[in-house]
Amino acid sequence: MSDLTVTVEPGRQDIVITRTFDAPRDVVFRAMTEPEHLARWWGLDETDTVVDRAEVRPGGTWRFVEKAADGEEYAFHGVFHDVVAPERIVQTFEFEGMPGHVAMDTHMLEEKDGRTLYRAISVFQTVEDRDGMVSSGMEEGLAQSLDALEGLARGLA
Amino acid sequence: MSDLTVTVEPGRQDIVITRTFDAPRDVVFRAMTEPEHLARWWGLDETDTVVDRAEVRPGGTWRFVEKAADGEEYAFHGVFHDVVAPERIVQTFEFEGMPGHVAMDTHMLEEKDGRTLYRAISVFQTVEDRDGMVSSGMEEGLAQSLDALEGLARGLA
Repeated sequence: MSDLTVTVEPGRQDIVITRTFDAPRDVVFRAMTEPEHLARWWGLDETDTVVDRAEVRPGGTWRFVEKAADGEEYAFHGVFHDVVAPERIVQTFEFEGMPGHVAMDTHMLEEKDGRTLYRAISVFQTVEDRDGMVSSGMEEGLAQSLDALEGLARGLA
Repeated sequence: MSDLTVTVEPGRQDIVITRTFDAPRDVVFRAMTEPEHLARWWGLDETDTVVDRAEVRPGGTWRFVEKAADGEEYAFHGVFHDVVAPERIVQTFEFEGMPGHVAMDTHMLEEKDGRTLYRAISVFQTVEDRDGMVSSGMEEGLAQSLDALEGLARGLA
């Protein structure tokens, strides 16, 4: 069981996420930014994620496609504002099934005694968009993704 | 006197801006996106704005430097997530004097009877960042910029 917290306060436009990874910060950052690793932890366990683009640098764009067993595809894309190794990534996020609704995600990594404290803030254009993301079941997918990310990072350490 | 509204509700992370421009949408969009026009309306009346970069396309980056009469320089940069002519721009925004504090701005244009309804939402990583932007005097600068944008757009029409 991880120490994942997902904070969604009524009336706000953000989701705040914290989790400790049992791996050093530099390998967590590598797993989060190197295209060959991204597809392995991103998305739900039961879907296959295909990395269409992952230009992990300021101004680079990214696009991932999740392929479900029933053949459905769910695509996501965005652009990187900041990629500051090994501590911070700021990027936009759009689910292509809801075009025009864009979030901005800030991922922050802090090292503590060989472990990594992860904190993320997603901000949405409206409270309704934020609530829609929460009600889409994002928390379960997030928990799965971050478990997979930790496992991958431990393997890289 | 313009019909500018700037809405800042306590405890939220956004600033919502509306204004009508007395010019058609396509020319307002051109004035907002063509690099040769950007420097002319962006920023305070008493500063000179230099466009360092303005790659106005998804994944493009922008950087503007405001030069004050006393020699001080204030630089801003970000990246474009969406540029959908003539209706919508989504971009990130960072003041280099406060590195790491990033906002996401959504600019929306709607045409009505030859005039243009402009609506913008800026969302910040925290309420504190939002409040800091408001207390920096952004509203006066914004009013000046949007007046200049309208004047420029009317000249292009």
